[in-house]
Amino acid sequence: MTKCIVAQSGGPTAVINATVAGIVKANQMNPVYDKVLGGLNGIEGVLQEKFVDLTDMSDEENLILRQTPSSALGSCRYKLNRQKTEDMDKLIRIMEKNDVETLFYVGGNDSMDTVAALSEYAAAHGITNRRFVGCPKTVDNDLMITDHCPGFASAAKFIANTALQTWYDVNVYTRQEVFILETMGRDAGWLAAASCLSEKVDVLIVPEVAFDKDKFLEVVSKKLAETNHCYIVVSEGARFANGEYLAAAEAKNDGFGHAVLGGAAKYLEGLLLSTGTTKRCKVLDLSTAQRSHATEQSLTDVTESFELGMSAHMRSADRTFTGKMVGLTRKPGIDKYDIDFFAVEAEKVANYVKNFPVAWLLDDYAGITEAAFEYFRPLIEGTPQFITKNGLPVYIKPYYLQ
Amino acid sequence: MTKCIVAQSGGPTAVINATVAGIVKANQMNPVYDKVLGGLNGIEGVLQEKFVDLTDMSDEENLILRQTPSSALGSCRYKLNRQKTEDMDKLIRIMEKNDVETLFYVGGNDSMDTVAALSEYAAAHGITNRRFVGCPKTVDNDLMITDHCPGFASAAKFIANTALQTWYDVNVYTRQEVFILETMGRDAGWLAAASCLSEKVDVLIVPEVAFDKDKFLEVVSKKLAETNHCYIVVSEGARFANGEYLAAAEAKNDGFGHAVLGGAAKYLEGLLLSTGTTKRCKVLDLSTAQRSHATEQSLTDVTESFELGMSAHMRSADRTFTGKMVGLTRKPGIDKYDIDFFAVEAEKVANYVKNFPVAWLLDDYAGITEAAFEYFRPLIEGTPQFITKNGLPVYIKPYYLQ
Repeated sequence: MTKCIVAQSGGPTAVINATVAGIVKANQMNPVYDKVLGGLNGIEGVLQEKFVDLTDMSDEENLILRQTPSSALGSCRYKLNRQKTEDMDKLIRIMEKNDVETLFYVGGNDSMDTVAALSEYAAAHGITNRRFVGCPKTVDNDLMITDHCPGFASAAKFIANTALQTWYDVNVYTRQEVFILETMGRDAGWLAAASCLSEKVDVLIVPEVAFDKDKFLEVVSKKLAETNHCYIVVSEGARFANGEYLAAAEAKNDGFGHAVLGGAAKYLEGLLLSTGTTKRCKVLDLSTAQRSHATEQSLTDVTESFELGMSAHMRSADRTFTGKMVGLTRKPGIDKYDIDFFAVEAEKVANYVKNFPVAWLLDDYAGITEAAFEYFRPLIEGTPQFITKNGLPVYIKPYYLQ
Repeated sequence: MTKCIVAQSGGPTAVINATVAGIVKANQMNPVYDKVLGGLNGIEGVLQEKFVDLTDMSDEENLILRQTPSSALGSCRYKLNRQKTEDMDKLIRIMEKNDVETLFYVGGNDSMDTVAALSEYAAAHGITNRRFVGCPKTVDNDLMITDHCPGFASAAKFIANTALQTWYDVNVYTRQEVFILETMGRDAGWLAAASCLSEKVDVLIVPEVAFDKDKFLEVVSKKLAETNHCYIVVSEGARFANGEYLAAAEAKNDGFGHAVLGGAAKYLEGLLLSTGTTKRCKVLDLSTAQRSHATEQSLTDVTESFELGMSAHMRSADRTFTGKMVGLTRKPGIDKYDIDFFAVEAEKVANYVKNFPVAWLLDDYAGITEAAFEYFRPLIEGTPQFITKNGLPVYIKPYYLQ
């Protein structure tokens, strides 16, 4: 009997813990591993042998874990790539020392690169009994091959609800007013586009289409002339034709070489005010609330995240299963939404970005096509029953603080 | 038989429509009025005779109206005070012309002033058959005499959930990080204080206690030294000892002589970064999302808002009932939370502000006392069952757009 480790990396989501809960639950149903260890703060903590024992988690704790947002095991932004052979060697020695056969890594692009790098390194060194399995999560929904990523739908649902509700708010006065909602989405417009589920978005700006100042001002002016109100949604990663971000003036660096953005909405507000297009403009940047707002988990999302963890665990009973990511695909040929799990080489997912399809965008920033609605709608279906106390949800005390 | 008008004023809330739904429902149970008219965009629209007929609303529409955020009848910021005798005269003539006996006005401080001014004007002119009844609503919870205001608890619940969830998010990395959540609250700290229901707030800044820069920096530094993370909540109306708002640099005017604030959190972020207290700081200003986020309605709040509308209608069957606001009081002498409705002179509520009790604040910005927790907790209890379609709540098309 050996052990497995599950660790989480990158930005949190509202359902990332459900994948961990699924791995733990699957191992209780079929104890492939003697122990399920939680690695704290991703690879960073695993390299320091910071573990908690999750093996005998009670069903109540498992349920509470599923409704707890953000990474209960802590996260990191440490990227273990092919160049860091010393770290890879250290990690494998730590796995050997602790009798750990499998590392489940729950994360996005960078985490899939870590899974690919470690499995390649192991293969190149003839190590066959240390295995690496990726479980996708990202609110950005920008991983290749998988139909969608656990975490995206709950963020999308919160954004759509917020767009709907703030649209109702901004329209109550007769005076002219523009509202600009900024969403996450460094390179892909999935989250911003999902706001259109509210059916209230007048203008949608995503990174996939170069921002044209004149066209934008024309579209907003037209809408204001018609109804005196205009509801705009913009991705943080919106950019000009030359590739420069609208938020460029406020760009910083997150240590991964990614620009940390914020301020695309502020840029648009400045543009509308300075050109006299409008005199009143409200801006809402949802910041990290959009990725952690677990009180609006999509039942579909949290269920898929849990089952994906189970599927990854079950597949790992095959001792040749390594270097893979478990993904989601829609069952073809049926009307009703349903998904299958499948495995793909992590290598094929790592370091690519799946953009929002430009074919799903209407002209003149007017929103999304019916095909996009059909893609989005089933993902946000359903609301879980939450365990609450004093009117608020009950959450797990983060394992990294226990 | 005569008619009544119900109109809404001031900033929207997540449950303001439930009061309208209660008035309509009560009139269906006991048709005191021949018709229930909705006045569009508050007094502004009533003065233009913009009405919709709500009398025969179906039960389904009534249920959907209760879950719809923001003012379905539209709102205004037009203040009808004792100086505007021409408007008051015009309003009473419009009521006479349309055979309207009672105007129910759902709003905050300014609306109660309108109710008081109109009833005084009617009394002074010997007009006994035109009556004016106030129904409180405000997310700010700053109305006198009533124990609390419909609308507050749902905003409080959304803020507490957001504080809880973003606390989970900001703590996942080992790196040092400060998070600052800014809430509404121009003059009173109720909403900011309610964030403490999350039990995660390290530093709470409200308008009721003068902001002391040195003490603040000392408290944050101490917390960072202990845990490397610090969670701060600040009211938009936080101010220095000289009365100047932290957000003063960004102050504008909303036409009522109130400062439109925004930027207290940005001020604190600048202070923390410029003094080197921390290098990483995230800011979230919930803007209008906090007052319109109806997917997190408190069941207690929406029920009380509905019943308050019913109570106001039922009391108005007494043809001497005018110039009053219907309020909420906790039933004394019982352990379990329960409320009674009562009526009070609108005059006693208008133009006063009920501050958050300083006695309920801990020293050194450390949050709120147990007495404050006891006050808040029952208000946020319960989650309504929502009518949904395609994963999102179904809302009424605003009457001002029909």
